[in-house]
Amino acid sequence: MQAEVDQLCVVLVAPRNPLNIGAAARAMSNFGFLHLRVVNPYEVAFREARSAVGASQLLANAVEYKSLADAVADCTLVVGTTAVRHRELQHPLKRLEYAARVIRKQLGSGRVALLFGTEKFGLATKDLSHCHWLMRIPTREEHISMNLGQAVAVCLYELSRDSRAQRPKPEKVKRASAGEVERINGVLLEALRASGYVNPRAESLTEDKVRRLLRRLNLQTEDAELWLGMLRQMLWKIRGGGK
Amino acid sequence: MQAEVDQLCVVLVAPRNPLNIGAAARAMSNFGFLHLRVVNPYEVAFREARSAVGASQLLANAVEYKSLADAVADCTLVVGTTAVRHRELQHPLKRLEYAARVIRKQLGSGRVALLFGTEKFGLATKDLSHCHWLMRIPTREEHISMNLGQAVAVCLYELSRDSRAQRPKPEKVKRASAGEVERINGVLLEALRASGYVNPRAESLTEDKVRRLLRRLNLQTEDAELWLGMLRQMLWKIRGGGK
Repeated sequence: MQAEVDQLCVVLVAPRNPLNIGAAARAMSNFGFLHLRVVNPYEVAFREARSAVGASQLLANAVEYKSLADAVADCTLVVGTTAVRHRELQHPLKRLEYAARVIRKQLGSGRVALLFGTEKFGLATKDLSHCHWLMRIPTREEHISMNLGQAVAVCLYELSRDSRAQRPKPEKVKRASAGEVERINGVLLEALRASGYVNPRAESLTEDKVRRLLRRLNLQTEDAELWLGMLRQMLWKIRGGGK
Repeated sequence: MQAEVDQLCVVLVAPRNPLNIGAAARAMSNFGFLHLRVVNPYEVAFREARSAVGASQLLANAVEYKSLADAVADCTLVVGTTAVRHRELQHPLKRLEYAARVIRKQLGSGRVALLFGTEKFGLATKDLSHCHWLMRIPTREEHISMNLGQAVAVCLYELSRDSRAQRPKPEKVKRASAGEVERINGVLLEALRASGYVNPRAESLTEDKVRRLLRRLNLQTEDAELWLGMLRQMLWKIRGGGK
């Protein structure tokens, strides 16, 4: 179990409130998940949280990133949390109880990132495009949005609770990391741009769409290399190579 | 279920911090438990919590009691929460996962009080004497004490979670048919040939390799269309389209 717990990273994206950052860290410590990553935090808040009385070692060890892509680059599964049910979600959405089972399984074979968005707006569409799928806490319809620290606590509790069910066997295939997938994403987008597939006025939309598409593939590590090789060759030709 | 949810009272004993009172109320609202009772709160804190921006109807409806005995008088089961494992507990102590089952059962027939103590010291020995038994959240040994609002959130989540979530639900996405994948295969191979990726002497080997690669992707039907579109555009360009 300890090894699996060590494979999970909690990623706070653009948190604004030092109390919430502290609360998230405390819940992590309670449930034994010690790896916190913070993307582009409101600097004052992050500093305050770190220097608060009783701030934990965990908070001192938290790693800060400039971009979400960097923060999840070494993870093989990236899961976003959302309160939303009815937005045109472009991703599969799982209830926490079911999601936790999938995550636990994955923790046996690779690093998993669990993303939490800003207190007010949650994860932005751009952030979501880095996710393989989303999960939601089963709150009631009339009041779906949870406090950040409480949401972290509930998710980590579900991940560490005694399910008493038979443990699923760890997956044997090695999944590609987010960084590997992102490299494919880069080459594919270049090829699409050079081919005239991308409408410049909808470039950002297309980028998000393609990124989600790649995430859904659940690529294996060894296949990632192959895809990269094929796409690079096509890109080279598209640009007029060999003439 | 609604009737059962209505049978649970969350009882905060002598809370000191308005933020914690507010957080407890918010978690209750998230999970649909609307009956809050407060015993002997620090008055300033309780007033502040109630008048906070965004304070809920639930908080406005909270009932204040002078003594714990009064607060639980109409309840048929009184459960105390504690972080402590090794105090000379005079009570049976159940882990949350198992305690929740007993509580859910009881909610069918009578009112249940769930007690939370002060932020610093938890429930006093005197408070514990009102309890039928105690429950604890399974935090790790090195850091057992949870934030009040987070503890309330985790307990209510466990009470309202879907206990039938033992088996993952069948997947809803529609997988691409072999025919759809084969069409992608065709276009991809043409693009690879036209790019010079395929060594003519190993053509059949490469074909097999690419086909297996595509099969491993677990493509969804709607994604198959997208891939086909992108690859066709690239192939068109590779063949000198648009010149």
